[in-house]
Amino acid sequence: MEFELIDQLKSWLKPDARVNLGIGDDCALIPQTDGMESVVTTDLVLDGVHFQTGINPAADIARKALAVNISDIAAMAAVPVAAFISIVFPRSWNRQQAEELLQALADSAREFQIAIAGGDTNTWSGGLAINVTLYGEVPKGKAVRRDGAQVGDVICVTGPLGGSFAEKQFRFTPRVQEALWLRENASLHAMMDLSDGISSDLGHILRASGVAAEIEAERIPITEAARSGKTEKTPLERALSDGEDFELLFTLSPDDVQRLQDIPDSPVTIFPIGRIIPGQGCVLIDAAGKRTECLASGFVHGFDAAGQ
Amino acid sequence: MEFELIDQLKSWLKPDARVNLGIGDDCALIPQTDGMESVVTTDLVLDGVHFQTGINPAADIARKALAVNISDIAAMAAVPVAAFISIVFPRSWNRQQAEELLQALADSAREFQIAIAGGDTNTWSGGLAINVTLYGEVPKGKAVRRDGAQVGDVICVTGPLGGSFAEKQFRFTPRVQEALWLRENASLHAMMDLSDGISSDLGHILRASGVAAEIEAERIPITEAARSGKTEKTPLERALSDGEDFELLFTLSPDDVQRLQDIPDSPVTIFPIGRIIPGQGCVLIDAAGKRTECLASGFVHGFDAAGQ
Repeated sequence: MEFELIDQLKSWLKPDARVNLGIGDDCALIPQTDGMESVVTTDLVLDGVHFQTGINPAADIARKALAVNISDIAAMAAVPVAAFISIVFPRSWNRQQAEELLQALADSAREFQIAIAGGDTNTWSGGLAINVTLYGEVPKGKAVRRDGAQVGDVICVTGPLGGSFAEKQFRFTPRVQEALWLRENASLHAMMDLSDGISSDLGHILRASGVAAEIEAERIPITEAARSGKTEKTPLERALSDGEDFELLFTLSPDDVQRLQDIPDSPVTIFPIGRIIPGQGCVLIDAAGKRTECLASGFVHGFDAAGQ
Repeated sequence: MEFELIDQLKSWLKPDARVNLGIGDDCALIPQTDGMESVVTTDLVLDGVHFQTGINPAADIARKALAVNISDIAAMAAVPVAAFISIVFPRSWNRQQAEELLQALADSAREFQIAIAGGDTNTWSGGLAINVTLYGEVPKGKAVRRDGAQVGDVICVTGPLGGSFAEKQFRFTPRVQEALWLRENASLHAMMDLSDGISSDLGHILRASGVAAEIEAERIPITEAARSGKTEKTPLERALSDGEDFELLFTLSPDDVQRLQDIPDSPVTIFPIGRIIPGQGCVLIDAAGKRTECLASGFVHGFDAAGQ
């Protein structure tokens, strides 16, 4: 099954001034600006792992494939610009199914205000696989990395956690605007997006920064979905380990937290959940003051984005 | 099957001054320079389509996954800088198999002098799939596109064609140095790399440029592999349509061809095979002067690189 899908996809896309040359040549061309850094991430989503064809509609699959990558760009406090999309269609798909997915990708790119600047399609005997590489930009030195957490920092998240499997994994809005606002209004020391759950993701910041953390169980915001879903886990356990929340996890000074919270009509709600301390590991403190290790295994994907 | 492959891969890679932040964060960071363009391409290679696990060794699979993308960067006369690699391992693979592939990717990156700046790994019930996105650079306005062929141009290739399936598809050297030398020493009007065979690929340049072509059958350089292999096709047919040659196909003025051929000890051999004429389509002229249409279907991959 081979067809001229590219002409269809091109017809659904508007020209984008940020891309000098897009679909239709060997490579895309994107102008560079002195003092900026290119921000690049890649994530592959798979049938049976990240979505289920036959259950999830094309619109959800397409949106998630883009959104998980945009979330990585947001995690650096950068602006997403252009997507490069590789798709392997199952050989059993007909043209209408393939076009529906491409249309959904074009729609999602419009929603997220990014260009689709290139891609690759193939068919094979296996399942649907979609790889997205996302290209973004940030002023040089302004990207917020994972390795800058400092002892004394407050650890925050941008929203309630847990229960994303029910619906949010397909509906979340990557925190691009929130990240840019936070970067403008505070000195963020370390940041990442929550894809695997705090109990897994926080470990990346702690190890990269050479520090430890104390988390207060009572301060962790928990979604309604995590409170109401029927699983063997408690709502707190779900908030810590369900994954796919795609909220931002970041650290900054107590003074900066206070300053952000004092801004009237702030567009971003921040939830302080703990603090950075010297040492290694992470301690969870419950309402009774009981301390337990909080770095458990989350929903491990191997190494995502530009690394783990 | 999940394991900490990323630490292994990082240990095999040297730091690269062209990448400010690589594996280990949400995104990679690459500095931008005023007056340059980022050149981005992506290609997905699949078990059973582009290689056969069990037949092709990991070194060949890894090298091809990178080389096909580097060839697209070469086709713009740009310099490859950094690769972003997504891999889906079959769930049946053990750690040693996965490490062998990663080691081979690190070795190939070293051979091609590119950084591995990010990636994503997953496992699933399907076959091995490797997506590579390659980031390169070119001075602004110096990229050679497909849409600049002019009536009167000579059409050239950089080497003999055909029979690549036997071995060359895994052994070819992307024509990066050749493309840069050609760009320095001539005004290239249009260029692409030959992935699907002239009879398919030339059509992209002709349609993008709004011109037609005449090809002289006797001037097409043919590999020994295409002359000696036993297939139903003639050697000429194989040179025209086998695909996976990864030589450069380009057009330039007759004066520039002469100038290039007059350079003593030229590091690049160019083979003029025809000329650009007004109109649509492509005519193949044999030794007896017989004219046939030469745009047949090649080995169609859908839309590769940043487009078809």
